[in-house]
Amino acid sequence: MSSGEQQLEQTVVIVGVGLIGGSVALALRAAAPATRVIGIGRNANRMQKAVADGLIDEFASELLPEHGVRAGLGVICLPVDRIPAAADQLLSAGCDVVTDAGSVKQSICTQLSTRAGFVGAHPIAGSEQSGFEHAVHDLFRGRICVVCREDTEHEAVQRTLAFWQLLGMTCRVMSPAQHDRVLAMTSHLPHILASVAAGCVTRDQLEFVGTGFRDTTRIAAGSDELWTSILMDNAPSCTAAVDLALERLSQFRTALGGGEASAIRQLLSEAAVLRRSLTELE
Amino acid sequence: MSSGEQQLEQTVVIVGVGLIGGSVALALRAAAPATRVIGIGRNANRMQKAVADGLIDEFASELLPEHGVRAGLGVICLPVDRIPAAADQLLSAGCDVVTDAGSVKQSICTQLSTRAGFVGAHPIAGSEQSGFEHAVHDLFRGRICVVCREDTEHEAVQRTLAFWQLLGMTCRVMSPAQHDRVLAMTSHLPHILASVAAGCVTRDQLEFVGTGFRDTTRIAAGSDELWTSILMDNAPSCTAAVDLALERLSQFRTALGGGEASAIRQLLSEAAVLRRSLTELE
Repeated sequence: MSSGEQQLEQTVVIVGVGLIGGSVALALRAAAPATRVIGIGRNANRMQKAVADGLIDEFASELLPEHGVRAGLGVICLPVDRIPAAADQLLSAGCDVVTDAGSVKQSICTQLSTRAGFVGAHPIAGSEQSGFEHAVHDLFRGRICVVCREDTEHEAVQRTLAFWQLLGMTCRVMSPAQHDRVLAMTSHLPHILASVAAGCVTRDQLEFVGTGFRDTTRIAAGSDELWTSILMDNAPSCTAAVDLALERLSQFRTALGGGEASAIRQLLSEAAVLRRSLTELE
Repeated sequence: MSSGEQQLEQTVVIVGVGLIGGSVALALRAAAPATRVIGIGRNANRMQKAVADGLIDEFASELLPEHGVRAGLGVICLPVDRIPAAADQLLSAGCDVVTDAGSVKQSICTQLSTRAGFVGAHPIAGSEQSGFEHAVHDLFRGRICVVCREDTEHEAVQRTLAFWQLLGMTCRVMSPAQHDRVLAMTSHLPHILASVAAGCVTRDQLEFVGTGFRDTTRIAAGSDELWTSILMDNAPSCTAAVDLALERLSQFRTALGGGEASAIRQLLSEAAVLRRSLTELE
């Protein structure tokens, strides 16, 4: 094998086959058709359907030692509060490398800090939908995956980077703490603000919303259970992010109350310049 | 003509041929090809292009008395602060009916309250883009148009309702004050919150945004000039809306700071239920 070629994992176990786990399975199918994919999910009927739909080769209703023995690499696609236990179980059973798709990293990586085989990751991709029926093979293509291990020469880190890259992602390495501070601003705060925007409207006003409201509040329809665990897990950084938002929103309040058009325009303009630069990046 | 048929306007003048004015022109073209469409816009080069692109039949760089004489109906598609003067000018020149597309209604309708021919309207449709190059013929189809005149038997109101219905809209009649209170919650507050979400992120964090941030902040890229005039014009209702958002955001702050998972989940859940009911309406 030349150095340019990438060693493919022979067997991968995906723990949690929802939107993210299902999309990992489909992306892996497309990129490495020979890799055997084991899916772990509580609901046997749904897992049978995932096999029938061609996402996974086989399934089990719970994670067993044999999965850790057979799979070289495991991906945990569960809500953040259930990731550490599952990762621990897989590694204890003999799995070489375990990565995850949790959107908060510090508490997970701290709990698994003695496990050299665990490489925390956050593929920044998703949707407000849930369930593997909404999984798509290109969910990760062209997106950023944050990998939270700075010892990039370690074999487990190398294999994790190769895995997410195989799914079409560009990897960025940063510490779990830095990840959580950045994502509080780029993901968790927007979710809270979308929820506030949706929560301020009454049912009889819904007829009068336009595309602006629909876009702004789309993610507020996401799972409140999942998002509660994300926000709780990243509470310190989210608190700081909400404080910044409260300050900015208060500036709007003051400017509106005082009829200060130039202050309103300044606030809108700063945000517009930043948002337009994102569109230009696309 | 049977009672089921609708009398079509012979000549319509559109003052302001941007995204909204251009889309009115295209929708009118599609629904009533025989109607002559005059466009008024300051930039003669751009207006020539609008004629060449087939949006309008003729143009003028400024509104002249002849336009009020020739057109039976005028639609003002200008920023809210420029609507009253243009409407006044058209009506003074002899135009029978003048409606508008302004997204704030109370100040406009108050200024034109002695003009029986003016029927304030707000077609709830739009985009974060601007310019008639982004105009589309079906921007208004299936959408709600709020018409702010409760004397619905008046001929000017009848013709205005018929006009917006012709473009595919469903009309709802309400007072200007009620319109402004509702739209502060369904449109102006979401714009402010989208702007806050975008304004809290730094340029070097932009790489780490996902589709959630993109959706939530999309409208924040809109014209800060246009939105400053909307927010200033509806300052009292927007102030009340921002107060409600500050209260809700503070509840998130308290719950995050105190580690109250059930309070966070309650806040997220209320908004999620409401937002999901909107998706079900689609």
